[in-house]
Amino acid sequence: MSQANIMDNEVDIVIGALHSDLTTFMNEWRPVFSRFHLIIVKDPDLSGEIQIPEGFNVDVYTRSDIDRVVGSSTSVLFSGYSCRYFGYLMSRKKYVISIDDDCIPAKDNEGSLVDIVAQHITNLTTPATPFFFNTLYDPYRKGADFVRGYPFSLREGVTCALSCGLWLNLADYDAPTQALKPELRNSRYVDAVLTVPVRAMLPLSGINIAFDRELVGPALIPALKLAGEGKFRWETMEDIWSGMCVKVISDHMGLGVKSGLPYVWRNERGNAIESLKKEWEGVKLMEEVVPFFQAVRLPQSAVTAEDCVVELAKTVKEQLGQSYPMFVRAAEAMVEWIKVWKAVRSG
Amino acid sequence: MSQANIMDNEVDIVIGALHSDLTTFMNEWRPVFSRFHLIIVKDPDLSGEIQIPEGFNVDVYTRSDIDRVVGSSTSVLFSGYSCRYFGYLMSRKKYVISIDDDCIPAKDNEGSLVDIVAQHITNLTTPATPFFFNTLYDPYRKGADFVRGYPFSLREGVTCALSCGLWLNLADYDAPTQALKPELRNSRYVDAVLTVPVRAMLPLSGINIAFDRELVGPALIPALKLAGEGKFRWETMEDIWSGMCVKVISDHMGLGVKSGLPYVWRNERGNAIESLKKEWEGVKLMEEVVPFFQAVRLPQSAVTAEDCVVELAKTVKEQLGQSYPMFVRAAEAMVEWIKVWKAVRSG
Repeated sequence: MSQANIMDNEVDIVIGALHSDLTTFMNEWRPVFSRFHLIIVKDPDLSGEIQIPEGFNVDVYTRSDIDRVVGSSTSVLFSGYSCRYFGYLMSRKKYVISIDDDCIPAKDNEGSLVDIVAQHITNLTTPATPFFFNTLYDPYRKGADFVRGYPFSLREGVTCALSCGLWLNLADYDAPTQALKPELRNSRYVDAVLTVPVRAMLPLSGINIAFDRELVGPALIPALKLAGEGKFRWETMEDIWSGMCVKVISDHMGLGVKSGLPYVWRNERGNAIESLKKEWEGVKLMEEVVPFFQAVRLPQSAVTAEDCVVELAKTVKEQLGQSYPMFVRAAEAMVEWIKVWKAVRSG
Repeated sequence: MSQANIMDNEVDIVIGALHSDLTTFMNEWRPVFSRFHLIIVKDPDLSGEIQIPEGFNVDVYTRSDIDRVVGSSTSVLFSGYSCRYFGYLMSRKKYVISIDDDCIPAKDNEGSLVDIVAQHITNLTTPATPFFFNTLYDPYRKGADFVRGYPFSLREGVTCALSCGLWLNLADYDAPTQALKPELRNSRYVDAVLTVPVRAMLPLSGINIAFDRELVGPALIPALKLAGEGKFRWETMEDIWSGMCVKVISDHMGLGVKSGLPYVWRNERGNAIESLKKEWEGVKLMEEVVPFFQAVRLPQSAVTAEDCVVELAKTVKEQLGQSYPMFVRAAEAMVEWIKVWKAVRSG
């Protein structure tokens, strides 16, 4: 694995803490996380001291750190699941890996513990192939290659910017699906990684992701907050929105996005039927959001992720802002985020 | 499995015979094929009587049938691997499944024999989702669904026109790859089917495919013949060309293309280094072919697969025909094919 070539000090693991007692979570992840630097960001709405077992190299950020760094008017961006974005902001490493605090390590088809860091880093450090589909999935994987007919000029691939992992047990379904199929659990471990083709949009789940912070860090943005957003994944949309921003920007910049391995094991929680009241708002919004991101094109003058976010925000405001005020707020949050991102970098 | 709803008489299994003794091949496939009608087309260049064991419902076509139906001037289209297209022409069934005669049934991760007919028919009779990527692969599969963020308006999907299966053991690599990595074998059984997104091109391998003949039959065309085409897959391009035609036409018609399960076990044969002399021609052509198919758009007036092929042939001649005379011949073969297709249907 090319992961061997990555120095431990090139990786930050960012955990957004929506629960104050992280003892079990951290102990489960100890074999995977203990070599790396961790950034834990406590949800500013969460009361109680964060509990972390010993033996980790960790920085913990709380509401007072957020207020100090970004000011109290901006700090509202970082409530709930969005608290992790403060960790992205504070990271100085090339690669960021982020896992929800209700997940533990999964096992592969052979019963071995999945090392999500190794797999995400392999995904990020081997090329992506967005311009032509390889039917045998990741051509850079040991034992695989490009199939007959794959143009040689495209076999070099492009840099991978984002790696989207998956979930066993409780998959990332929306509240209506969970409510309709309360018994639905994902038990299929699909042993594959693939590049999502250029111009194809995907619903990024923030549960288990990794990205090249230097390339696309500014494009992961806590921008879209639902009015009734709560403390369950299926009540949020920030990651889906963020994911479409990153995909459009990666396509524009000639970077790749991969999906597939690694898996995490996701534990049960929450009452889907209770959440349905809030979730429908997010469900309705996707009908506007997806066609927008499928059609939007960025100007050639936008060459960095920061430029791209600012340009995207303009178009969001002009086009989506017409239908829902929430999108105007999202556009404003995107612009604000880039200001903060630059200020933190220059400070 | 929805395969249960398909009547046996809706399926033809088409085999292009490049070997005259099919005894072992047919006996290996007996548990899967024996319920269905088979069409075997003998490569017109092949000498010797076709040998088929008893107990199959089979029609065998040879050079004399081809000459009789399409005329001897057109029959050249059907030499070598292209002989199977004569079977597509003669089929009267809704679904066609086609497997190379050097493949036998594969086993899945549990060691069970893979029923390629059941899996291909499941792929073709459940919807495809080309307009948005589902990270958990086929959302219609038992135990799966659409993930959070997937627009509800796209969950109905579209009709699947083509199902591209894969290969264990000797995968469908080109001659340069096989020559460089003679030990390379595919042993990874990836338990997934996915829809190839709209506008993403893929290198279709003809080794193990199924399609809805009524919808896209005319778009599978023996059009691109390499000058030094031989009797090994890696010396041919007809399937790759055909696959891009079907993909462009499916995208235009709002139909889907799936890739993944089912697998077949592909036996070794041929000397890759010997084939390299011929293969480089095909390899070079892909550098022209792929950008062409990525960019081409069909007029709204083309509403059937036949219309689409004729329109595509015009553009092939105008654009690709400039660089290589082989593409002019491919365009002419496409037009000729549609004439034959219509004549056989009306006759």
